[in-house]
Amino acid sequence: MKAYIAENKQRFLDELFDFLRIPSISADSNHKGDMLTAAQFVETKLQEAGMDKTEICPTDGHPIVFAEKFIDASLPTILVYGHYDVQPADPINLWDSPPFEPVIKKTALHPEGAIFARGACDDKGQIYMHIKAIEAMVAKNELNCNVKIMFEGEEEIGSENLATFVKANKEKLKADIILISDTAIIANDIPSVETGLRGLAYMEVEVTGPNKDLHSGVYGGAVDNPINVLTKMIASLHDENGKITVEGFYDKVIELSLEERAALEAAPFNLGEYKKDLDIAEVNGEKGYTTRERAAIRPTLDVNGIWGGYTGEGSKTVLASKAFAKISMRLVPNQDWNEISDLFTSHFLKIAPKTVKVKVSKHHGGQPYVTPTDSIGYQAAFKAMEEGYGKTPVPTRGGGSIPIVALFEKELGLKSILLGFGLDSDSIHSPNEHYGVFNFLKGIETIPLFYKYFKELSNA
Amino acid sequence: MKAYIAENKQRFLDELFDFLRIPSISADSNHKGDMLTAAQFVETKLQEAGMDKTEICPTDGHPIVFAEKFIDASLPTILVYGHYDVQPADPINLWDSPPFEPVIKKTALHPEGAIFARGACDDKGQIYMHIKAIEAMVAKNELNCNVKIMFEGEEEIGSENLATFVKANKEKLKADIILISDTAIIANDIPSVETGLRGLAYMEVEVTGPNKDLHSGVYGGAVDNPINVLTKMIASLHDENGKITVEGFYDKVIELSLEERAALEAAPFNLGEYKKDLDIAEVNGEKGYTTRERAAIRPTLDVNGIWGGYTGEGSKTVLASKAFAKISMRLVPNQDWNEISDLFTSHFLKIAPKTVKVKVSKHHGGQPYVTPTDSIGYQAAFKAMEEGYGKTPVPTRGGGSIPIVALFEKELGLKSILLGFGLDSDSIHSPNEHYGVFNFLKGIETIPLFYKYFKELSNA
Repeated sequence: MKAYIAENKQRFLDELFDFLRIPSISADSNHKGDMLTAAQFVETKLQEAGMDKTEICPTDGHPIVFAEKFIDASLPTILVYGHYDVQPADPINLWDSPPFEPVIKKTALHPEGAIFARGACDDKGQIYMHIKAIEAMVAKNELNCNVKIMFEGEEEIGSENLATFVKANKEKLKADIILISDTAIIANDIPSVETGLRGLAYMEVEVTGPNKDLHSGVYGGAVDNPINVLTKMIASLHDENGKITVEGFYDKVIELSLEERAALEAAPFNLGEYKKDLDIAEVNGEKGYTTRERAAIRPTLDVNGIWGGYTGEGSKTVLASKAFAKISMRLVPNQDWNEISDLFTSHFLKIAPKTVKVKVSKHHGGQPYVTPTDSIGYQAAFKAMEEGYGKTPVPTRGGGSIPIVALFEKELGLKSILLGFGLDSDSIHSPNEHYGVFNFLKGIETIPLFYKYFKELSNA
Repeated sequence: MKAYIAENKQRFLDELFDFLRIPSISADSNHKGDMLTAAQFVETKLQEAGMDKTEICPTDGHPIVFAEKFIDASLPTILVYGHYDVQPADPINLWDSPPFEPVIKKTALHPEGAIFARGACDDKGQIYMHIKAIEAMVAKNELNCNVKIMFEGEEEIGSENLATFVKANKEKLKADIILISDTAIIANDIPSVETGLRGLAYMEVEVTGPNKDLHSGVYGGAVDNPINVLTKMIASLHDENGKITVEGFYDKVIELSLEERAALEAAPFNLGEYKKDLDIAEVNGEKGYTTRERAAIRPTLDVNGIWGGYTGEGSKTVLASKAFAKISMRLVPNQDWNEISDLFTSHFLKIAPKTVKVKVSKHHGGQPYVTPTDSIGYQAAFKAMEEGYGKTPVPTRGGGSIPIVALFEKELGLKSILLGFGLDSDSIHSPNEHYGVFNFLKGIETIPLFYKYFKELSNA
């Protein structure tokens, strides 16, 4: 198997580059055509890899690519999930090379080179590992589980149509486990397997003051400025201890035991390196928790975007009519994203002064998720990483969100295994996103080991 | 004279329309060519109006149009100042008709119709009144003062090159009074003459957190978010009484006497109408002052623009590297704009947490200004308005700023008379800026009366 991967390494990379050249930005309606192109590319590659049945399933949004290879009813079935859509690339000017023209460059953490392109790690590079792993297993006659594939095009915008698809296709999606590569390991010499993910509630707020933009000299000081009001409202969402002030926000949060917290802290972490990598003098967050806890087991509230008034070149003495912000909250077990969205909405409306009108809308969200470490799936992932990397992996909790995994469990009764191969430093969602060539190839090697151990443990 | 204006009314409007069609936006370097076109248009019209000497004076920025008509050394000389540049037109989508395609529409306050276009009132419409008033006086042989004209193209961006021009041309600009139409009256049936203006200090701030945009799931909660930090910093710039918290900000503010305040309050004002016009439920500002005081005799701090993170369609779970804001302060006697800019800078740097880097830069500014009501110039303006409108005008204090007037006094030793004919409701700096046809024609009628009374009082 290793030999096969080594022989075909260059072709695997060339194919991935073709995939990365398609600007499949799901959030931007101008790229609807590119989304279909990307779906068709994936389908073709799945056929070439040896999947028996492939189809592009239309949705109200971007299509879902489904594929199947049935071997034997006695064998367990693995449902591989991933997404072919990517985040917008802006701010484009901060990219050192064009986001949709992949190049390989060496970095300190990737001495063997990393692939720089939007989606290289999140998630095109990681779903392509699965396609190539299947190709290798089929070629070498080592595929020992039935496989189903479900790659969507709306993960970055909330997976709403996938949810509908899942509810409508429970039979078609019948499987024993869901396998997902859309997360990271601690370091290339410190393999890890995630035991959970944070949930997400993504909101947008609009604050309206006067019914039109005003001259700040004629009205300034007498008419409340919606931008100033918005900053006051947002500032009040955290207290002096970094706690979120939305009433009821923490009510359902499950506090980890000191043992659990100690276990997570056991994983190597260098705060100095962390700050140096980001070029910040200090970290900051909720009092009473470490940096890693703040980013993994604690809920958060971040402004993802803010705008209002004159933002062009030079100056304009305007008192704006409206100010806007995109605000998202990361959630932990057992917060419910719909409930939190409602709590946020009523809180934000409540703190608005009489001088403005406030609109709050939901973008999307997802539930937090936890994988039991004693499950067959988690054990198989653990052993696969151990054999693949030749090191005992570390259990971690991920700070990011894959909203759909909670829905998979609810609708399909299936647990999801988060077998990710990226690094937190890969700049996903940022300019200069990249993915190590080592990580890409190591993933293709390690995925078949998951199949092997999952079959073994299933029969045991 | 009235007859001449009536006969030529349509031509005056047609010419103004041609002027308004030139998008002379000084803040936007893409419009450099339009700026020159506008300057040349003004020069041609000044020649046609009968000015003896006209020239376009180049500067490091946009040119200054200078013109002169000398009649007799025994006569007083009036230096007319105004600007042919306009504010940017965005947000364009909020205009009911294209900003540079003037149209006349009736409104509640302008039953005889108003000219809708960027610059209609501020300041193209108002400088064009002077050109046409001079044409009428020359045509009717009633010009009884020497006239100098100085129309600049950088008023909306700080008049920096005009300042240089003024310092370098004191002899050329020798005069007895400066006459400016760039302000408003209370209402078309309540003429008023401004006794003062607020100053301005316009700043831009940049807050940098991590050295790149980050994934809000991976880093959110652990790394300080520069947008959240910026909102906290801005929110802290006002206390619970609406007072500005910048240390030393109020130190040099001259408090008006209760008599002076009472005099200003004497002018008609309807808070209900004011709120209704802006569609706001409540006004808000510094405790202890009325709405009009807040907008005229008190200093203010407003965010004119804010931006950071993802502001596009849909959602992006990003923790931005940078956040920005444009912040301006309106100043009153005797605040000094350079001093206030420095106080703001050191205060803003001081309140920045260790987790971010902060950059503060000055855009431009200007000193507050007061005209003594017992001066010949003010008296001439008062009588001119009284005769022009057939009503005793009300003295008012303007909330806006014409930074250059303080410099005129310092460098040329000349007072400026603010003989404006607009209305606060004309939406200057806003979408759908307009200027009443009545106001335009009334201005052309009234300006010659200022010449008449200024000559009379000068000789008295």
